[in-house]
Amino acid sequence: MPYRAPIPDFAFILDHVVAFDQVRQTERFSEATPETTRAILTEAGKLCETVLAPLQRVGDQNPARLENGVVRTSPGFAQAFAAMAEGGWLGMAADPEYGGLGLPQTLATAVNDMMSSACLALQLSPLMTQGQIEALENHADETLKTCYLPKLISGQWCGTMNLTEPQAGSDVGALRTKADPNGDGTYAITGQKIYISWGDNDFTENVCHLVLARLPDGAAGTRGISLFMVPKHIPDAQGNPGTRNALRVVSLEHKMGLHGSPTAVMEYDRATGWLVGEAHQGMAAMFTMMNNARVGVGVQGIGVAEGAFQHALGYALDRKQGKTPLTGAGAIVEHADVRRALSVMKAEIFAARAIALANSVAIDMARATGAEEWQSRAALLTPITKAHGTDIGCEVASAGMQVHGGMGFIEETGAAQYLRDVRVTTIYEGTNGIQAMDLVGRKMMDGGEAAFRLLQEVEDGAEAARESLPDLAEQVWQAAESLREATEWLVAQDMQDRFAGATAYLRAFARILGAHYHLKAALAGDARRRALAEVFITRVLPEHVGLLAQARAGAASLYALSDEDLAA
Amino acid sequence: MPYRAPIPDFAFILDHVVAFDQVRQTERFSEATPETTRAILTEAGKLCETVLAPLQRVGDQNPARLENGVVRTSPGFAQAFAAMAEGGWLGMAADPEYGGLGLPQTLATAVNDMMSSACLALQLSPLMTQGQIEALENHADETLKTCYLPKLISGQWCGTMNLTEPQAGSDVGALRTKADPNGDGTYAITGQKIYISWGDNDFTENVCHLVLARLPDGAAGTRGISLFMVPKHIPDAQGNPGTRNALRVVSLEHKMGLHGSPTAVMEYDRATGWLVGEAHQGMAAMFTMMNNARVGVGVQGIGVAEGAFQHALGYALDRKQGKTPLTGAGAIVEHADVRRALSVMKAEIFAARAIALANSVAIDMARATGAEEWQSRAALLTPITKAHGTDIGCEVASAGMQVHGGMGFIEETGAAQYLRDVRVTTIYEGTNGIQAMDLVGRKMMDGGEAAFRLLQEVEDGAEAARESLPDLAEQVWQAAESLREATEWLVAQDMQDRFAGATAYLRAFARILGAHYHLKAALAGDARRRALAEVFITRVLPEHVGLLAQARAGAASLYALSDEDLAA
Repeated sequence: MPYRAPIPDFAFILDHVVAFDQVRQTERFSEATPETTRAILTEAGKLCETVLAPLQRVGDQNPARLENGVVRTSPGFAQAFAAMAEGGWLGMAADPEYGGLGLPQTLATAVNDMMSSACLALQLSPLMTQGQIEALENHADETLKTCYLPKLISGQWCGTMNLTEPQAGSDVGALRTKADPNGDGTYAITGQKIYISWGDNDFTENVCHLVLARLPDGAAGTRGISLFMVPKHIPDAQGNPGTRNALRVVSLEHKMGLHGSPTAVMEYDRATGWLVGEAHQGMAAMFTMMNNARVGVGVQGIGVAEGAFQHALGYALDRKQGKTPLTGAGAIVEHADVRRALSVMKAEIFAARAIALANSVAIDMARATGAEEWQSRAALLTPITKAHGTDIGCEVASAGMQVHGGMGFIEETGAAQYLRDVRVTTIYEGTNGIQAMDLVGRKMMDGGEAAFRLLQEVEDGAEAARESLPDLAEQVWQAAESLREATEWLVAQDMQDRFAGATAYLRAFARILGAHYHLKAALAGDARRRALAEVFITRVLPEHVGLLAQARAGAASLYALSDEDLAA
Repeated sequence: MPYRAPIPDFAFILDHVVAFDQVRQTERFSEATPETTRAILTEAGKLCETVLAPLQRVGDQNPARLENGVVRTSPGFAQAFAAMAEGGWLGMAADPEYGGLGLPQTLATAVNDMMSSACLALQLSPLMTQGQIEALENHADETLKTCYLPKLISGQWCGTMNLTEPQAGSDVGALRTKADPNGDGTYAITGQKIYISWGDNDFTENVCHLVLARLPDGAAGTRGISLFMVPKHIPDAQGNPGTRNALRVVSLEHKMGLHGSPTAVMEYDRATGWLVGEAHQGMAAMFTMMNNARVGVGVQGIGVAEGAFQHALGYALDRKQGKTPLTGAGAIVEHADVRRALSVMKAEIFAARAIALANSVAIDMARATGAEEWQSRAALLTPITKAHGTDIGCEVASAGMQVHGGMGFIEETGAAQYLRDVRVTTIYEGTNGIQAMDLVGRKMMDGGEAAFRLLQEVEDGAEAARESLPDLAEQVWQAAESLREATEWLVAQDMQDRFAGATAYLRAFARILGAHYHLKAALAGDARRRALAEVFITRVLPEHVGLLAQARAGAASLYALSDEDLAA
């Protein structure tokens, strides 16, 4: 079954579940009317169905490769990237002053979701560029903005993020890349960076690397880090790609999946760079880029889940095995355990997607209004969108393989690729463990205020549903209460105990939010929405009990096992 | 960190957790003294560490391939297979009358576990042969036994299972392969079989295919199926490989993992076969083979989990990132979320391994005593061992990748291979969905009697632990009670409602059994065993609440969503 963009689902969630109307009512985003929204999503969906989806297998089977220092991308990727650029999709949320469409992030999220379903490996390139655009908009000076933004937005150039070094992964502060002032306002950047997604390509005129490095007077740790723009080709006076900069792709990684996306080891050897933002404030700028990218990566997980679900459903509708209870015709979708798997997959995708879109609405509202409440809402939801969206991506892709039976393990089927590709999303842009620690640490610095505010909405939603859906409403209300209690417990603990339960806590939070959005959908929608909500609330939501027990288990028993005990 | 065989763990579980003493006290297995057991496991462990483990990556990077109709196996596999044969490991549980060692299945299970950790792709070959040996021992006539068993046991020949056809996967009864009587007591076998693990190799003199086919007077469905021995080379009068039989490998599958194991499409074109057992009774014989193989496949999952755990722990002890709470030295194992992951992985492996060994003890007791109670215990545990062991294999392998961070996605690290390899184990030998249906269907035909008997032991175990470990004992007791109630509910439902909750029910059952064995270990063992039991009982066991809710959710809400709703 070829990929079909789930436009009605997006429209329904925007209109009835995540209150996108609030965004439309702001001055900044007043152009995002229901008609415009529908037209944009339909157009993007068409591009995904017809141009990107056919490249999914091509990228896997013809990986990007390095030839004499030049990255050769998979067949068709250049043309598809051009089509994405042509459609304006690269800069859809970017500032119109530099050529962007200025549309809400919420719509960009929906488009990223569809592009991830269709061809994750290629979609990763624009995702990196989007993050770079946002970092430059927020932190770069006017000269840099004028030089880079129009080209990034048009797709003539593209962007990468350079954080990781061999000894500095999750611990970015341990980086060793150096930036020496050249005396003319530029800097000489020297060091090696690893895991650089789309570190090079053969279809944009220039590749713009945002690189974290330390100035000579930079303190140790994260506080001494600055951010630099280091282009592959140094722009000339007219802003066109000029002299080749002193940077190169050393090698490409041989990965489990995402073969169409070249993951580079980059070497900078006194490459010319320009400071972005203030000296020693690189982490702040990088966080802008990472927060955008974290929502984007969560959405990658959801997009892949959608692709894998459609693929598995197509198989299950077609494949005949045994007598079946309904029609006897024997399509495996009619078998209860297969139907259970597919129904749960669909319910999971809806829930994770609603969380990501609610997160995006909060981002848009924060941008449009500057309100602290929206900022903290967006900040709270970001690690949940990222970690949960990508976990669901892996789980649904794996369930999709399982639905295929033996065929799932055979590469020709395509089911395995979804799992191989999506598996990295729980790792990059901060592992899901890092996301969970962010949630219970940094995002609870407010004593849980933002979380309690959100939980109040969940409980209000349950109250509002009590009359027409009493059973489902009661289950959601009870679960929200349990999460509230766990949150109260959590914010009173030291970091060590919080971290020991962080992963389970994040997942429990996502379960309750998912149930909340399903309940809203059930209230606003038809019998199908209610049936799907029932699947989620009766089958998935109860998981929160075990998760919250684990969230509150504390660190002591983990450290009661010594390193030697673990190895024994 | 190179693989280290966990001999002390096996010894502890046998002595203190699964009551292997009962097996030793039978006449049949009286030679399996503690000293002999330890010596056998140590010897097998050495083989795994030194001969098999170095081939793990070799098989992945140099897949078996088909050249002019001949399968060329991965470098080193032939020598390693010879070493396994040499050590007597292929026939360790086989009948001494035909050259086997006649050891308990429980020890074979432990050895299979270690071999699966070391090199899953190669281990699959002896696993298939073991199943074939057992099928022949139980169903073949004396002529076939005398001809085939000694050669299979010595490793001169090896065995395969041929069930699946393109249109007949989980629905074996739909098979079309035909067996025409030749008039001389042999049969002409014609048909195509797929997914034949180790369908051929270049290191045994002969490959013996057990093939399901239908005689001309065979009824439709599973009741008309017979089992045939179809050797690659027809044994001559001296029992040596003679004329080449009319069968061939058509192609090998390109799989997500397990590259060292050739998965063949086999074609039989009036190949000569011999009937094994009675005509039309092929399914019974095949079930003997499958039940053995199902326990074996569950153990594959556990073995891979062990390998992946050791690999991840080695990385976590070595890799430094950030300041850590304990020593500040920064090995990532000291970070709470990483430590949580590793502790849970270790606790999961212990639990799944104890279940598999308890299952094997039941098999041995059934063989040694013929008692119906042991037979039904073994039958009940088999789908749990298979489905849960392989689920844990996938989960632990995935968690192991996650511990590696970015390195986990890079193939050179080896972490990804564990996940790619083990992923098929939830699919083959009956998907885990089929296992769950077997548990709530066939295995509950007794009204749940075998399950209730086992639950009684769990509750008795909890009572016995109340004095010294009151908190843990109470949690296990409560969980067992919940499972008892769910089981009472389950056996009163029709099949459709049972099947809708089957997967969750099986997992819940495994959680409670895992907690039971951990509690026994905590009672008998040192502080480390207690700490690990606490990790499992406080962090993993609570999952049963959500699972049992799902187990009891019934089928109605799944079918409230139509096929069109799922696709909408």
